Amino acid sequence: MSTETDETSRVDDSFHVFDTTLRDGAQREGINLTVADKLTIARHLDDFGVGFIEGGWPGANPRDTEFFARAQQEIRFKHAQLVAFGATRRAGGDAAEDPQVRALLESGAPVITLVAKSHDKHVELALRTTLDENLEMVRDTVSYLRSQGRRVFVDCEHFFDGYKANPQYAKDVVRTAYEAGADVVILCDTNGGMLPAQVQAVVATVIADTGARLGIHTQDDTGCAVANTLAAVDAGATHVQCTANGYGERVGNANLFPVVAALELKYGKKVLPEGALAEMTRISHAIAEVVNLTPSTHQPYVGVSAFAHKAGLHASAIKVDPDLYQHIDPELVGNTMRMLVSDMAGRASIELKGKELGVDLGGDRELVGRVVERVKERELKGYTYEAADASFELLLRAEVEGRSRRYFRTESWRAIVEDRPDGTHANEATVKLWAKGERIIATAEGNGPVNALDRAMRVALERIYPPLAKFGLIDYKVRILEGRHGTESTTRVLVTTSDGNAEWSTVGVGENVIAASWQALEDAFTYGLLRAGIDPAE
Amino acid sequence: MSTETDETSRVDDSFHVFDTTLRDGAQREGINLTVADKLTIARHLDDFGVGFIEGGWPGANPRDTEFFARAQQEIRFKHAQLVAFGATRRAGGDAAEDPQVRALLESGAPVITLVAKSHDKHVELALRTTLDENLEMVRDTVSYLRSQGRRVFVDCEHFFDGYKANPQYAKDVVRTAYEAGADVVILCDTNGGMLPAQVQAVVATVIADTGARLGIHTQDDTGCAVANTLAAVDAGATHVQCTANGYGERVGNANLFPVVAALELKYGKKVLPEGALAEMTRISHAIAEVVNLTPSTHQPYVGVSAFAHKAGLHASAIKVDPDLYQHIDPELVGNTMRMLVSDMAGRASIELKGKELGVDLGGDRELVGRVVERVKERELKGYTYEAADASFELLLRAEVEGRSRRYFRTESWRAIVEDRPDGTHANEATVKLWAKGERIIATAEGNGPVNALDRAMRVALERIYPPLAKFGLIDYKVRILEGRHGTESTTRVLVTTSDGNAEWSTVGVGENVIAASWQALEDAFTYGLLRAGIDPAE
Repeated sequence: MSTETDETSRVDDSFHVFDTTLRDGAQREGINLTVADKLTIARHLDDFGVGFIEGGWPGANPRDTEFFARAQQEIRFKHAQLVAFGATRRAGGDAAEDPQVRALLESGAPVITLVAKSHDKHVELALRTTLDENLEMVRDTVSYLRSQGRRVFVDCEHFFDGYKANPQYAKDVVRTAYEAGADVVILCDTNGGMLPAQVQAVVATVIADTGARLGIHTQDDTGCAVANTLAAVDAGATHVQCTANGYGERVGNANLFPVVAALELKYGKKVLPEGALAEMTRISHAIAEVVNLTPSTHQPYVGVSAFAHKAGLHASAIKVDPDLYQHIDPELVGNTMRMLVSDMAGRASIELKGKELGVDLGGDRELVGRVVERVKERELKGYTYEAADASFELLLRAEVEGRSRRYFRTESWRAIVEDRPDGTHANEATVKLWAKGERIIATAEGNGPVNALDRAMRVALERIYPPLAKFGLIDYKVRILEGRHGTESTTRVLVTTSDGNAEWSTVGVGENVIAASWQALEDAFTYGLLRAGIDPAE
Repeated sequence: MSTETDETSRVDDSFHVFDTTLRDGAQREGINLTVADKLTIARHLDDFGVGFIEGGWPGANPRDTEFFARAQQEIRFKHAQLVAFGATRRAGGDAAEDPQVRALLESGAPVITLVAKSHDKHVELALRTTLDENLEMVRDTVSYLRSQGRRVFVDCEHFFDGYKANPQYAKDVVRTAYEAGADVVILCDTNGGMLPAQVQAVVATVIADTGARLGIHTQDDTGCAVANTLAAVDAGATHVQCTANGYGERVGNANLFPVVAALELKYGKKVLPEGALAEMTRISHAIAEVVNLTPSTHQPYVGVSAFAHKAGLHASAIKVDPDLYQHIDPELVGNTMRMLVSDMAGRASIELKGKELGVDLGGDRELVGRVVERVKERELKGYTYEAADASFELLLRAEVEGRSRRYFRTESWRAIVEDRPDGTHANEATVKLWAKGERIIATAEGNGPVNALDRAMRVALERIYPPLAKFGLIDYKVRILEGRHGTESTTRVLVTTSDGNAEWSTVGVGENVIAASWQALEDAFTYGLLRAGIDPAE
């Protein structure tokens, strides 16, 4: 067992936060993890302070075998212990001789989760063995792994359905695992069909009847995975299995973040190291980034919309007291309150948003009214300012100052993409701009037409505005807005730009992706120069 | 009251499914509904069979006033009653003289939901009146509206927080509303901070202490809105307020679909008209379409991933018995089981997928192995076959038949986008293709570069393959796959094409959006010709 951890930084063993993003979470549609991805996620989870990180199934999958080898060499875990997942030994065999069980030991993981069947029908249909032999498989595998110095958790697959079909047998599996030396026996709602009241009743009965330490593993097929997990805790479970952002098979698993937030903030139960909860939003987004899924905007606690206020009614009340429409202070979970700009928002939101951006609207009712009108008009055309603060700030300043900031004027541009017979591509853009009274023509190549336009613009303006040299496009999103009502469809582009320190987002709308991108780039350059303190010099 | 409904088709009044998508749902970040959108959504909700549709706040918002006027003229509701939302009268006034209350009556809606403050602090801070006057506002407004022949529901805003702060006063508001003639008093978890056990306890106590008929309105800030709603029903609430797809302020509201699915399928409670539940997936997606948000792929019951199976272990078990990993038959909610193709899937999934597509792999282990390898290799490059069945079928057939179907060969192409000084755009594409031994050059214009390429391809090939004339691009998605590991970023395009009857999706990956689009178009044309039964003729 080579995984070293600093014992002092762990929260105590009486309650387990067990993460299975790297195993069960990876089964989500659209997720495809490399070993490097898994190592990065493991580091994030350890930073967050979970007690256990289930890394995969060594032996069943070469990528997982490699992950365990590298994790132990490359990561010095601060809080978490590494867990290997595997099955009980084969029917009719011997755990000590089972190649799959050997692979679990060879992984070097100090903790092993064994999946065991606890539904009588599954034992017969899927394992094709007898109920007694299944119990023997549990007993033999658990006690062998314990004799090899490993800590063992047992996942009872399909426990709740099994309990409904044959409560006696389901409980026999729990008892057998616990008596053979498993530290915790986990009741799994594998097909996700349970509701909280049922989970609570079953967990309470099983604890009373078996005396085992129980854990809970839920799936979100009824939309109740978080509540089911908490219901099990209410009934006495002391080990919760979750995945970051709720990733998992079908609808997903119980989401780690709302589960630990509820335990810490609503139950007052310390389940993470000091200070970890305030990192939750950052870690949730970082993990989404690694698995290459857009972070869910509406995820409880950590979504960018989780503390975003739109309704005029709410915005007016929030001016009085933010707590009126927020169940917690967003900073507790590393998130922030946002006021949304939209045509529903009304005056109160625009004023608050102005304040957030440092633009004093000084209670000027007529000015605020003009901004509201302008936002409505632009949103009708497909613009959205909720996700493009920099474009909104340019709009707001144009109204406050009575004119738009203009560092340059576009005469025309052209982008050419060519696929050549040899399979290579040429992307070339030419821009014709005016700045400080000068007409500038520049041409550049890029890895795509938007990149070529971005470069041509930079080539044209860099000499006049040196700060432009540091600007770089770091994110780019395209959305086709469908012409549902017989109108032509339009394209909306959101661009995020960075100058190495700050990031800003701008929006463009046009009849095609290149035209929309150009608009967003114009706003991005303009905002960047404004931020850099450059005077409009046209 | 001009809303006519066919009384016989309603489920009985003892349990209310109350939808507030058009009011509370519209407060979600990114939603911006026109009157036409609202009418379309109301029709869908009525088709689904909800009992009540809250349409908005007439008087407060001209769009909502127009909605009520038009809904009553244009929609003949089969199941639902229209509900207008508004507030209790002003402090110190008279309900009969209150302009806002008059607007509610003028809306013509047969049912009115009044929002009332039930949290003592909010009465003082936000309404700036006394606790007694607030009770009087409730009593006066409810009894006036009742005297005008309307049915009245009262939403107690911030009830749960109010109950914690001052249980006596919170209950006084409930009692006052009920005694004044409200049919149902709804306890609202306005800031969404509650958990199911707390909701259940409070609802049970309030029913016992006031004798009022109670409803529940929850928000999803703890990720427990569905469970909180069900917990209230467990405690005796007989009215649930939800929104389609859980749209709503911040994280969102209780999602209508998992709530009614749980009531119908788990509680065995008939809350919808016969046959409605099987329309749920269609209606969920249709509403997402109208509000112009991508349907959530992982939504319980109705998401495209809700019954999608990826893990090799699950796929093998499902070959034995689909019920092992599905809590309900997907057809009950109008959804379908899907097998996902991914490098985690393994052989069993590929075989099932082949069967789904009507391609017999005949248990050919070596062939299945080759397909698995090919999928892995392509997914590493950024392709995804989970969302591009047509591209996967082409890949599969190429392996089964030993060669790709090729109706044409691309020599080269070029796309030009030009922004002219007068602000108009020119989009022109030229393609050079070979088909049936002939070299064809065609040029076309379009409203964007991809549209121009699509048209040029059609112009080039239509004479040789007449079925192409009916193909049309109906959806187009772009995703930038970030080069996280020091590699260049690549672009993935998903295209959905229709021939008027069927739809199919294809994928393309390339160094830029145009190159990736071209690949997806090539697959789309090839698959369409294959479907049309045309022989590859190159």
